[in-house]
Amino acid sequence: MSAVKVGLLGLGTVGGGTATVLLRNAEEIQRKLGRAIEISHVAGLGIAEQSIVDASKVKLTEDGFDVVNDPDVQIVIELIGGYTLAKDLVMKAIENGKHVVTANKALIATHGPEILKAANANGVNVAYEAAVAGGIPIIKALREGLAGNQIEWIAGIINGTGNFILTEMRDKGRDFDDVLKEAQALGYAEADPTFDVEGIDAAHKLTILASLAYGIELQFEKCYTEGISKITPDDVNYAQELGYSIKHLGITRKTDDGIELRVHPTLIPQKRLIANVDGVMNAVLVYGDAVGPTLYYGAGAGAEPTASAVVADIIDTVRTIDAPVEHKVPMLGFQTDSMADVPVMAIDDIETACYLRMTALDKPGVLAEISDVFAKHSISIEAVSQKEPAEGADKVHVVLLTQKVRESNMNAAIAEVENFDEIEGAVARIRVEQLG
Amino acid sequence: MSAVKVGLLGLGTVGGGTATVLLRNAEEIQRKLGRAIEISHVAGLGIAEQSIVDASKVKLTEDGFDVVNDPDVQIVIELIGGYTLAKDLVMKAIENGKHVVTANKALIATHGPEILKAANANGVNVAYEAAVAGGIPIIKALREGLAGNQIEWIAGIINGTGNFILTEMRDKGRDFDDVLKEAQALGYAEADPTFDVEGIDAAHKLTILASLAYGIELQFEKCYTEGISKITPDDVNYAQELGYSIKHLGITRKTDDGIELRVHPTLIPQKRLIANVDGVMNAVLVYGDAVGPTLYYGAGAGAEPTASAVVADIIDTVRTIDAPVEHKVPMLGFQTDSMADVPVMAIDDIETACYLRMTALDKPGVLAEISDVFAKHSISIEAVSQKEPAEGADKVHVVLLTQKVRESNMNAAIAEVENFDEIEGAVARIRVEQLG
Repeated sequence: MSAVKVGLLGLGTVGGGTATVLLRNAEEIQRKLGRAIEISHVAGLGIAEQSIVDASKVKLTEDGFDVVNDPDVQIVIELIGGYTLAKDLVMKAIENGKHVVTANKALIATHGPEILKAANANGVNVAYEAAVAGGIPIIKALREGLAGNQIEWIAGIINGTGNFILTEMRDKGRDFDDVLKEAQALGYAEADPTFDVEGIDAAHKLTILASLAYGIELQFEKCYTEGISKITPDDVNYAQELGYSIKHLGITRKTDDGIELRVHPTLIPQKRLIANVDGVMNAVLVYGDAVGPTLYYGAGAGAEPTASAVVADIIDTVRTIDAPVEHKVPMLGFQTDSMADVPVMAIDDIETACYLRMTALDKPGVLAEISDVFAKHSISIEAVSQKEPAEGADKVHVVLLTQKVRESNMNAAIAEVENFDEIEGAVARIRVEQLG
Repeated sequence: MSAVKVGLLGLGTVGGGTATVLLRNAEEIQRKLGRAIEISHVAGLGIAEQSIVDASKVKLTEDGFDVVNDPDVQIVIELIGGYTLAKDLVMKAIENGKHVVTANKALIATHGPEILKAANANGVNVAYEAAVAGGIPIIKALREGLAGNQIEWIAGIINGTGNFILTEMRDKGRDFDDVLKEAQALGYAEADPTFDVEGIDAAHKLTILASLAYGIELQFEKCYTEGISKITPDDVNYAQELGYSIKHLGITRKTDDGIELRVHPTLIPQKRLIANVDGVMNAVLVYGDAVGPTLYYGAGAGAEPTASAVVADIIDTVRTIDAPVEHKVPMLGFQTDSMADVPVMAIDDIETACYLRMTALDKPGVLAEISDVFAKHSISIEAVSQKEPAEGADKVHVVLLTQKVRESNMNAAIAEVENFDEIEGAVARIRVEQLG
């Protein structure tokens, strides 16, 4: 069979990696697919200076619309990122009847409903394995490998920058700002690190995972998102002493009241495999009703790991490029007429155990007063300990682990405790998950 | 679309689990697949007494050939295990133009070439995700999710019984025979545990993984297989002291000289994620040239975890049930006309680092003599230590870690050392892998 022609939007980190992998592994890919994949048109700024693609064989342009309007291009690979231009190019490609492969989590999480609707209407496929957890084939696992299961919950380390920072804080006792600067110097974190450290990037990915798990529409705006910038070295240490690691997790869970969708720092037992996923690596723990827990681990970012997922999507797309829709895996894993409208729960209605840390004056009776407040709000305390004076000899850290408590109750209790004269500043609260 | 009719061979642990999952998750599966899966014919001994399937709606028989010859059955699910009857039934099903889903690793590893050839000739599909690592979708990951990669190596904990035994030996200081008896009492190990503890079951699975990774024919007979029955609590302890865990691994690696295919106990650094996979759980670590290391973890056996993989295969098979072959993933991941004939290497030609333990008379000069032998065979010693008298005050354990050495050189050196008057009994040798 003749080669399939693909057009590449973007020749930066991931685009360059994709071109490199397609060229280096061309023979291996053809042995699997039975036909060749040819990069026929590439768009990117300053692209003429790049040596990855052979300018004598490939059309080069600085205008992405040249690629999506090229009648020879059968599959458009969108690797420029962002919402605006990327969206216009993807929508135009779909309108032109081209299949799309993208690594753009922000685009899928926020404009996914519109894009997938257009793709369905035009009979083309939008593949986005690289949008979640880089090279880990987690979308394929959820959508196909675990298709016989009802997914009960997912918990994932899906932002490498955040995991690198938390790992360094734990291993070296450094504080957040210090490690963030290093991560920026190493190129793990952007100049504006908000997307990574405040959990927005993870929320994009979690939104996608939840849709695939439960067959619900993409609802990024309903994802509760809390970052790691307030985690202190004290919290990391106290968690360790209690047998926990702090990880920045995306968690989605199906309950009788709806679907939980939340990104926040989380204490998890050190003995869980996912607690040992360190540095920039990603891992996703999926609990299915038949299979039980399964975990998927690998590089969540980087040129070639991300390219690995992009190329897998290209191969899948080529295999069924002219197949009727029933031969293809639905883009969100469920048939479009079978999507559920189970509500995404507000964070106030979610129940979790909590770790709390507060700075108190070292006076008799403080613990009793705190305990009274928790009792009043029906919050059971699992463990409490008073730590070495931190900020001064007259102050102590009080660390509490609670049993499961509804978020709104916990908020009320924390507000009351923060009003105590003996309590200084805010109460730090980190949710706890056993993941058992 | 009308329901797809499947016939089930076997209603034991996995067969019962498969029926249970298909029935319990019928609605969820239909939401994904767009059509229903109907169990229409079931074969098994004593099946009339089973309550899992509804005898008023499903044909029941004790003769599997009734199922494979039933013109209404479109997909045959083989879950009886073993080589003989299972093979006859599968071959007959293929001859009758039916697709096959099987969890039978022994069948695929040993009769796979004949079975897949017949399937190709008859235009039907044989799916076997459940044959390797139970519920972990590792075959899908290798064949599709990582299809853009050249796989460099795979290392897997792919036998839960063996991993349970090694975990108990490490955590509780118990010896092999003692833990094996418990594993048998718990139902983790068969009355005849040879397949599990001597590595035959793992070798079946590794044979399949190697074919998928490298596009080579299934060559179970060339897999080097060594069990865990000679591992002692001393070895487990010494390994721990050196920073290693002992795991029973299936390892396949592509080298310039051919493909390594070997199952044996292995020292691996404790800091690796896979070293923390304990109990009956399975995990497969795959290193691809683009993606780097990825790991897949989950239950490797049990009724519903295995059923999870079987049902995923049924869903995949249904999706492309009447599709032309180019829309389907090739059964071994590579096109049948693109298989490689890279040789599988003999164990004698493979290079690994080694852990050695020997019992020596506590006399001056023994270490020097041993060192001379190793030097003569060009074996570099990485670390050596002499351990507390074990069997008596006049004897010591000498523990060595070598650098990478060719197996045949190591064998020659060990034979010489075992001839020393000062060395008692056999030298224990466990290969070491960094998995970095």
